[in-house]
Amino acid sequence: MLNVKELKSKFDKMNDFDIAEEIEIMKKEERILSYEILEDRMPDIFSLLSIKIRKEIIKSYDEKKLKFLVNNIETDDLTDVLQELPESCVSELLKYATEEKRKIIQNLLKYPKNSAGSIMSADFIATSINSSTEEILEKVKDSSGGHEHNSIIYTFDDNKILNGYIFLSDVIKCSGKNLKSKIKTPTIYVHTMDDQEEAARLFNKYKLLCLPVLDENKRMVGIITSDDILDVISEEVEEDFSLMAGISQSEEDVPYLKMKLFPMIKERIGRLIFLMISATFTGLIIERYQKILESQVLLAAFIPVLMDSGGNAGSQVSTIITRSLSLKEISAKDIFKVVAKEAKIGIIIGFVMAIVNFIRLLIGSAVDIKINLTVCITLIITILISKIIGGMLPLIADFFHKDPAVMAGPLLTTIVDTFTLIVYFNIARILVGI
Amino acid sequence: MLNVKELKSKFDKMNDFDIAEEIEIMKKEERILSYEILEDRMPDIFSLLSIKIRKEIIKSYDEKKLKFLVNNIETDDLTDVLQELPESCVSELLKYATEEKRKIIQNLLKYPKNSAGSIMSADFIATSINSSTEEILEKVKDSSGGHEHNSIIYTFDDNKILNGYIFLSDVIKCSGKNLKSKIKTPTIYVHTMDDQEEAARLFNKYKLLCLPVLDENKRMVGIITSDDILDVISEEVEEDFSLMAGISQSEEDVPYLKMKLFPMIKERIGRLIFLMISATFTGLIIERYQKILESQVLLAAFIPVLMDSGGNAGSQVSTIITRSLSLKEISAKDIFKVVAKEAKIGIIIGFVMAIVNFIRLLIGSAVDIKINLTVCITLIITILISKIIGGMLPLIADFFHKDPAVMAGPLLTTIVDTFTLIVYFNIARILVGI
Repeated sequence: MLNVKELKSKFDKMNDFDIAEEIEIMKKEERILSYEILEDRMPDIFSLLSIKIRKEIIKSYDEKKLKFLVNNIETDDLTDVLQELPESCVSELLKYATEEKRKIIQNLLKYPKNSAGSIMSADFIATSINSSTEEILEKVKDSSGGHEHNSIIYTFDDNKILNGYIFLSDVIKCSGKNLKSKIKTPTIYVHTMDDQEEAARLFNKYKLLCLPVLDENKRMVGIITSDDILDVISEEVEEDFSLMAGISQSEEDVPYLKMKLFPMIKERIGRLIFLMISATFTGLIIERYQKILESQVLLAAFIPVLMDSGGNAGSQVSTIITRSLSLKEISAKDIFKVVAKEAKIGIIIGFVMAIVNFIRLLIGSAVDIKINLTVCITLIITILISKIIGGMLPLIADFFHKDPAVMAGPLLTTIVDTFTLIVYFNIARILVGI
Repeated sequence: MLNVKELKSKFDKMNDFDIAEEIEIMKKEERILSYEILEDRMPDIFSLLSIKIRKEIIKSYDEKKLKFLVNNIETDDLTDVLQELPESCVSELLKYATEEKRKIIQNLLKYPKNSAGSIMSADFIATSINSSTEEILEKVKDSSGGHEHNSIIYTFDDNKILNGYIFLSDVIKCSGKNLKSKIKTPTIYVHTMDDQEEAARLFNKYKLLCLPVLDENKRMVGIITSDDILDVISEEVEEDFSLMAGISQSEEDVPYLKMKLFPMIKERIGRLIFLMISATFTGLIIERYQKILESQVLLAAFIPVLMDSGGNAGSQVSTIITRSLSLKEISAKDIFKVVAKEAKIGIIIGFVMAIVNFIRLLIGSAVDIKINLTVCITLIITILISKIIGGMLPLIADFFHKDPAVMAGPLLTTIVDTFTLIVYFNIARILVGI
């Protein structure tokens, strides 16, 4: 274990993020020592730590240290921290906040999780639109926020309504002359109750560095900076990835090799059992058509390829539609357009696949032509239906305010599989003449 | 169609991004008119337009206008634009660039696609570490880059090696006193030849606003700003999403409802046919074990549930491992740790699923206990093998520098399905005694 002096000089060379990572893997005594050494930097580090470590710090710090900590964390980080800590820790921390800080925080805490209000910071520079260069620079000097909150200065009219913004570098460039001509009109902003994904969408579309947040009276109450948005985007990517992997999302983000066995099993098993039980539907249908299968057991050989093709064709569409929904390119009212488009695509793709399949079976195996035709006709119908259902399901889910991705996946597979088998066996009955 | 005056006043109220969108959907005459009206703003708008429109602008602009355009686009935008335009347009444009601009651009164009060098901008403010506040502010005034390139000032030693950086707001705050104490040591940077995803990872991890880019001699040659990174991240998300949907990625990003039928079919059909042909492997195996199936046709009813469960179990792991690989949490050398971990998880999940399935079949259907046991034992082995192969495949692909996601998906399905069926029919042969 390192002594105080060694730890100190080690931390001096490290940035906040790397220190936070380091603390997580330290032994307890070393951690407690680090908290003392890092007292001055703790306001910047605290929000980067895990909940367990944060609780430990609150326990180990005395009143003076807690006061310094809570009054020097940036407001947006502090709200994040408080939203994640248990009630007892929150009141412990807020006890030491100054009256002013407490008010700001309590205001910010009112915004629902994932709203623009919940990720914004109250640290921004606001001034009258008639301010002089000197007045603006004075405000920058007095500001307490980090530099990412100071590079744009917002201007207000007499009713505190946002009416302009100017880049700090432009204030310096114009050095008093033409200051007003450099002030731009704000056309892009969010409201406190908008979803944080709406803020991310605007950042992405307009390549923003800062985004003003307005309350219901159109008064500016905060800003969202690009570092906040990177968080929102990674949360979204994690979400997509969990959906992709078919696992439930775990609370904390632990690297693979460090994850414990049982949380991993818990994450995965629910979905697997759910899918296994959905898949039994297909079993029931096969049982029902057992007679047909008995007289032509070779029919079984094509069940996997038909079901897989239907599943794949459907999930292509449902993923694209889910994506377009989240980009707000389409909405539930476009359902007929989507169905029309997918029907055309389905027919064409179905035919091409059927032809490929027909030739393959003709050349590659000794399958009876009637079975070959049964498979090909089923393929066309399956692809067509999969495309249509794959397009409809996410839109229907969205209409009922359900998550399109979660709803559409397993339901799609079950519907498409069931449908495919019924079509398959009935065409077989007619064509093969069982 | 709007006249010049109407168009002008309409554009005056719009930002560059919205104008670019508007131009894309205009009629040709209106577009040509817009290019004239927007002459002054074109350097900011040009890189936001589609390739088709850019070509049209180059054609319609005279020498004077092209000169203004090419010399006023920010360098990173200009390199982006040039990389996408055909050779003839590139030389047409570069002809009008100033000597200095051309040199910078030709330098930037040397960096390979998707490298940090290819997305960086050469517009940044550099000064000696011994500069005074006045000198720094003078440099800011002289700088031509956008405000996102001016909020951090970089300092160099006598050998032009990067040795510090300071926020513009800190320069103003300290007003001459203690300037040096505000200069921070740069510990986070990329090299020109690093992958752009490495830059994105650093932005994400350290919540950066700017990232310096160094050449092989450790000299700073550019910066990457957060708006560049938002582009990189959306490209990556698009890539993930295409993989998720099992479609090949289209060149241009067109909203769903506006996409034409044939490009959509082209995007989708390759993967579907490929998967269909892979799935025929399973058909061949079923054909091979036809005799067993003939004597116990009910065995066919459980093929879908076994194959689906194996596929789902395997893709959970392969997605998690692919993700961990891209976050650099694991590498090919961890393969034994991954296999050991997944084997344990596989055994436990396999047993739980087998028990659930056993009870379901015992209660819910009149299946012979021997078939029930066959299904349950196969389920355990399938889950175990799927977890292990799902963990290994992405690591092996990565070791051979292949894309883990593309390689692992279809290969995984084929291996797992084949394996599942062979195990299933052989256990059936023994247990059911065929």
